[in-house]
Amino acid sequence: MIILVLNCGSSSIKYQLIDMQSASQHNLLAKGQVERIGLPDSVLTHKPIGKEKWEVVGDIPDHTSGINRILRTLTDETHGVIGDLSDIRAVGHRVAHGGEYFQESAAVDAEVIRKIESCFVLAPLHNPANLKGIMAMENIIPGIFQVAVFDTSFHQSIPPKNFLYALPYDYYDKLRIRKFGFHGTSHKYVAEKACRMTGIDFNRSKIITCHIGNGGSVTAIVDGKSFDTSMGFTPVDGLIMGTRCGSVDPGALLYIADKLGVNLGKLNDMINKESGVYGITGLSSDMRDIERAASSGNERAQLALEMYNTRIKHFVGSYAAEMEGVDLLVFTGGVGENESAMREYVCRGLEFMGIELDYELNRGLRGIDTVISRPESRAKVVLATTDEELVIASDTFRLYR
Amino acid sequence: MIILVLNCGSSSIKYQLIDMQSASQHNLLAKGQVERIGLPDSVLTHKPIGKEKWEVVGDIPDHTSGINRILRTLTDETHGVIGDLSDIRAVGHRVAHGGEYFQESAAVDAEVIRKIESCFVLAPLHNPANLKGIMAMENIIPGIFQVAVFDTSFHQSIPPKNFLYALPYDYYDKLRIRKFGFHGTSHKYVAEKACRMTGIDFNRSKIITCHIGNGGSVTAIVDGKSFDTSMGFTPVDGLIMGTRCGSVDPGALLYIADKLGVNLGKLNDMINKESGVYGITGLSSDMRDIERAASSGNERAQLALEMYNTRIKHFVGSYAAEMEGVDLLVFTGGVGENESAMREYVCRGLEFMGIELDYELNRGLRGIDTVISRPESRAKVVLATTDEELVIASDTFRLYR
Repeated sequence: MIILVLNCGSSSIKYQLIDMQSASQHNLLAKGQVERIGLPDSVLTHKPIGKEKWEVVGDIPDHTSGINRILRTLTDETHGVIGDLSDIRAVGHRVAHGGEYFQESAAVDAEVIRKIESCFVLAPLHNPANLKGIMAMENIIPGIFQVAVFDTSFHQSIPPKNFLYALPYDYYDKLRIRKFGFHGTSHKYVAEKACRMTGIDFNRSKIITCHIGNGGSVTAIVDGKSFDTSMGFTPVDGLIMGTRCGSVDPGALLYIADKLGVNLGKLNDMINKESGVYGITGLSSDMRDIERAASSGNERAQLALEMYNTRIKHFVGSYAAEMEGVDLLVFTGGVGENESAMREYVCRGLEFMGIELDYELNRGLRGIDTVISRPESRAKVVLATTDEELVIASDTFRLYR
Repeated sequence: MIILVLNCGSSSIKYQLIDMQSASQHNLLAKGQVERIGLPDSVLTHKPIGKEKWEVVGDIPDHTSGINRILRTLTDETHGVIGDLSDIRAVGHRVAHGGEYFQESAAVDAEVIRKIESCFVLAPLHNPANLKGIMAMENIIPGIFQVAVFDTSFHQSIPPKNFLYALPYDYYDKLRIRKFGFHGTSHKYVAEKACRMTGIDFNRSKIITCHIGNGGSVTAIVDGKSFDTSMGFTPVDGLIMGTRCGSVDPGALLYIADKLGVNLGKLNDMINKESGVYGITGLSSDMRDIERAASSGNERAQLALEMYNTRIKHFVGSYAAEMEGVDLLVFTGGVGENESAMREYVCRGLEFMGIELDYELNRGLRGIDTVISRPESRAKVVLATTDEELVIASDTFRLYR
């Protein structure tokens, strides 16, 4: 069964075409992306598996024409991978925010669309773009089976003691101010994969997953359910990220705003776009650049690296304490899969809480699913590559059945 | 040697008169406070040790007249405890904020006064009042030896990786936006006391101190030096407190401000005065009230209690990880010394990291210095009563010598 996976941003669409043979067997047929939607010289980059990469430049004014372009490419005689549009049985969409409505992925209908809309206010940049993708698809192939897979739904199991803020309760009642958490599909996917790799029972275990990429979050999973996570009401909280500050004294922000007379919009831009390792170093938001600068002696980059790694370690310790133990620690995401020095920094000295990294095995390891703890370690440590598109395809496959 | 300890707030002065016989021996002679300075019906409450409590109502327009009133009371024929003002050899002051100037307590001179003034901007409510007390004392007894003991100085050893925020570095350079931490005198005092109680070497150990009162903070101490602490640039960050929110997604605050159109001043009031357990429950900022309401079935109070305790546990875990181990865990402060259920909540299930509370011994224990871990526990757990005034007197005594 062939499934199209779409991740629609405000000016881009990423796609994968996946042939799901069963719940556990699949083939990637093609992937690619459309960029600069609504801007001059939009570009489509298409990578059919087993064929040459293809790039087309040309105006793509909106999401409907972007998806049309993708579908035409997928069925193109030379560059395509399927014969006819009807080969696509279902479409899975990444949707950023499901609010408190969605505990799991949902087959799209009028009610689901209404709920995605009512979460616009919680994810004003992402949800409208995600919904545009859903509506465009329905326009192009009316009645096609579509599924919404939410970044937030896995975290809906977090108990109130962990999702509420110690703000006046009214703000929760009236504005839904609470921790939602993000990267839910990735945390769940790599936790389950790492359980299979180690023989740990996902539904009877205490797991910490570190999804560390340009954005990043750490999640505590108890008996298969998200128990706490480091991102909050917004994706700015928790870990230090490329350009996001993560946890910061709220009083300090108000002090800055007061002293410099900056307004809310500017403050929001500052914590989201001008902070993180970029803000500390002034160099780059990409950890590879920071790592390189640190290696060549840049002190600010060395400091940023230490702060970045320390914050991850901070959450690993706190979630181990909150769960009262840890059976499995998982690293994933662009940085989590590739930066062995980060994994070493986080795990170093945690033997006292049962986490024993195999430093030799870990060193230099990149992007290969591997159990990286020592055999005698009470908690297993695993490098597990993530694949959010596959989760979306799997959920779509499951709901279609 | 008789030392007067003063803690001057904006409209109150707390005092203790302590006879320091040596660095380790002392006698409390009297304590008390002046309240409602500058308001009608100011009141002085005086408790001479071994004599009856005494209360005087009457106008006290400013700090100088407040201190004058205290000095007259201390030398009063009936209610006093010393014969003459000249018996007071030195005065120790609590000063809220020493910025990056003070790594330790300092004998007051013109330079010290200038530095305390330049920290007004960092503690606009407290430092001016503290300095008023110093100036008033100098007016009344010119040339008296005075010492400033800072809430922040113990934390000046925190390394940059733990004191910097991942905000644009300019904010540190230009506005000194960084973690300062507070309750420093208390954290140091109880850590040293707990080391004496357990035979642990303060200068070669990993210690977590939980100072939990109406305000609260957790500190990680490595080899006698503060390594990290949960309060930040301001005292609003970290733990959930009586009316302060502690750590909260900064993005959530900006969202609230945007949606409701509240300004910065209101937002600051909200996180400082309307949040914490009071904000969650709408009942009280006093943990005794919350505990009582929770016991009688109030669900919101039960939730607030769980959130409050979980946050402490969160920091205990993270600091154990950051220090790569823990030898000693100390509870102090009004709540820390008296709420055995909180201590049990925090320690429960932490056996995997070497913390084994003696649940029997802990239960119901209030305000008595006690080692409350099981004998076989790798990390010792201690209830240690704090005495910030004694630290101030000791530092004053030491600097006078």
